Amino acid sequence: TNPVYTGLPTTIFEVMSRLAIEHKAINLGQGFPDVDGPEDVRRFAAEALLAGPNQYPPMMGVPELREAVAASNARFYGLDVDWKSEVLVTSGATEALSDIITALIEPGDEVVLIEPLYDCYLPLVRRAGGIPRLVRITPPEWKLDTAALEAAFSERTKAILINNPMNPAAKAFSREELAVIAELCVRHDAYAICDEVYEHILFDGRPHIPLMTLPGMRERAIRIGSAGKTFSLTGWKVGYVTAAPALLDPIAKAHQFTTFTTPPNLQKAVAFGLGKTDGYYGELSGALAAKRDRLSAGLTRLGFDVVPCGGTYFVTADVSSLGLVGGDVEICRQMTLEGGVTAVPVSAFYAGEAPSNFVRFCFSKRDEVLDAALDRLGAWL
Amino acid sequence: TNPVYTGLPTTIFEVMSRLAIEHKAINLGQGFPDVDGPEDVRRFAAEALLAGPNQYPPMMGVPELREAVAASNARFYGLDVDWKSEVLVTSGATEALSDIITALIEPGDEVVLIEPLYDCYLPLVRRAGGIPRLVRITPPEWKLDTAALEAAFSERTKAILINNPMNPAAKAFSREELAVIAELCVRHDAYAICDEVYEHILFDGRPHIPLMTLPGMRERAIRIGSAGKTFSLTGWKVGYVTAAPALLDPIAKAHQFTTFTTPPNLQKAVAFGLGKTDGYYGELSGALAAKRDRLSAGLTRLGFDVVPCGGTYFVTADVSSLGLVGGDVEICRQMTLEGGVTAVPVSAFYAGEAPSNFVRFCFSKRDEVLDAALDRLGAWL
Ligand SMILES: CSCCC(=O)C(=O)O
Ligand SMILES: CSCCC(=O)C(=O)O
Repeated sequence: TNPVYTGLPTTIFEVMSRLAIEHKAINLGQGFPDVDGPEDVRRFAAEALLAGPNQYPPMMGVPELREAVAASNARFYGLDVDWKSEVLVTSGATEALSDIITALIEPGDEVVLIEPLYDCYLPLVRRAGGIPRLVRITPPEWKLDTAALEAAFSERTKAILINNPMNPAAKAFSREELAVIAELCVRHDAYAICDEVYEHILFDGRPHIPLMTLPGMRERAIRIGSAGKTFSLTGWKVGYVTAAPALLDPIAKAHQFTTFTTPPNLQKAVAFGLGKTDGYYGELSGALAAKRDRLSAGLTRLGFDVVPCGGTYFVTADVSSLGLVGGDVEICRQMTLEGGVTAVPVSAFYAGEAPSNFVRFCFSKRDEVLDAALDRLGAWL
Repeated sequence: TNPVYTGLPTTIFEVMSRLAIEHKAINLGQGFPDVDGPEDVRRFAAEALLAGPNQYPPMMGVPELREAVAASNARFYGLDVDWKSEVLVTSGATEALSDIITALIEPGDEVVLIEPLYDCYLPLVRRAGGIPRLVRITPPEWKLDTAALEAAFSERTKAILINNPMNPAAKAFSREELAVIAELCVRHDAYAICDEVYEHILFDGRPHIPLMTLPGMRERAIRIGSAGKTFSLTGWKVGYVTAAPALLDPIAKAHQFTTFTTPPNLQKAVAFGLGKTDGYYGELSGALAAKRDRLSAGLTRLGFDVVPCGGTYFVTADVSSLGLVGGDVEICRQMTLEGGVTAVPVSAFYAGEAPSNFVRFCFSKRDEVLDAALDRLGAWL
């Protein structure tokens, strides 16, 4: 069997969720909301299921959704996108990443990755025969070091893959950082694969800045969005890719032989959802900001050293001062088994040697669940 | 960009469907029913959408569906399958093929393929670095030649990929042919990737014989099923893989980084559907057999030389005697533009030099649609 996949562990998110279920722990590990997104969006999907047709939609996605994605790009970022040649619907952002990396990376190509990194990035790059070049950022600032980034680029760089807002760092890249990335992409004639699934989950008035909007990046950036994150429906697995036609074409070919297409009723409902008023989007990030504050304050009270969170629905915390035994993996295990609360060890987001004193909590949960988790943690510590 | 996908054409099914829509032709090209599957199955899915949760289900699939797939293996084929270690749910059979080939094939591995072949097989094998070894079968018998198959196996053979019942040949492999394949797999220590999506669409009392049930194949065969085909809901993109634990493990790892999971409401509804009585399954193939006869008789009356069809919802026909100008690709184009009926050129199912005198029609359409198509073809010819 293929060496990239043989012996690969099950993703940490699944592992921790299984452990949480087994031990009836409150699951603040895997990132998903515990309240489903808008009822009208779900009703739209349910009605489309009953009305039909439930047959293959077009390979690129239903026109309604592709148009809605193009319109969102214009509405939120001033991007002028042609839905027919520049938008592809995928079965979630993971499939989008798989399609993009499969389509663009050839054996021997170097891909710049920023560590800590989401756990599918490395296997996908390796499966394509790409060579990862890792640049590490460190808490609590998570600042991108220009010299380190520059050193990671070479004449063999095919692409950089960035997650902005970034999981698990909960960081939004600054315009200055993005400018450095853009400049390096242009200088090295590289693509930028932009996993922007948390584009609508930014706090404290920070705007989301798609790398695609920076000078020279319109034709180089491939932008990924996610209905799962934007509508709190992670199980729907509806994602979308925006890219210039020359890039989207091979990506669509990879998609056509990966899933071919995505359930039409879900696609139509997401198209409907994307048209929601600014009120919806403001409410999404506003409600999550309050939850971030609630959980962060509680963790701080308990002695966790909480790292500032500018976006995504995750907070990381340094557990060094809690006097616990073992590294983050062991601590997360104990916290589940003895404390009844599940988090994710941040070392899972590293390729090489990793700090072992950080854990990640997902705060897109009902307030009473966050409070109960804090109570349990307090009792445990 | 990656050479496997750059310059690859859009799949013939999509191309012909687009052409059909553009010219308002009756679309007997791409394979999908024009009536959606069971209302109770769709209602089950709609209710699950409203009731929730609509968040990530387990990576391997919801337990209900994995149990139902294991139960189906027992019920229809007497296979004893452990749902926890031997069943994986995928976002359609295409994703299953992508996961399996990605997981099992390493660069340099040879893969035996039977031509005519479904159009994603070759690019998936090539993307994995595999080397296709093609064995051709020919109409109207589509008999598998033992010597040719034997010659295609070598010490570098990693797997054979077979589609049974076979699209577009509409052939069900005989027990004798399957025995030859099994014997060669055992002799060469090869896997068998079994695309059995039409397992419930077999006619005239033919039983479906999963290759997995043959001697030596329980641990070597990877069996793919499809809710899209079994419940006439091709847009749902719910597929399932049955394989021994040692094979399923790397396949699940490929899946975890391809789509990660599949919408839970659709999975639960498919689990419900798989429990349907024998009446449902008999009705499915019975109704399609009648449609096969209706279309075949009509085509024969018009002068098409129809190839016998034992399964799937496709018939192929030799058009040589119709006095049309051009090969199958051109004929399908003209048939759409001038005749108002869309079919698929069978040469699209060949890797190398292909016969150009066969076209494929999909008959899973309402009787009045089949009749209208025949009327149009009659007027055109
Ligand atoms: C695909 S499960 C992981 C969900 C997630 O994005 C996370 O927990 O980081
Ligand atoms: C994925 S679209 C093709 C549908 C099909 O199986 C066919 O037409 O052969």
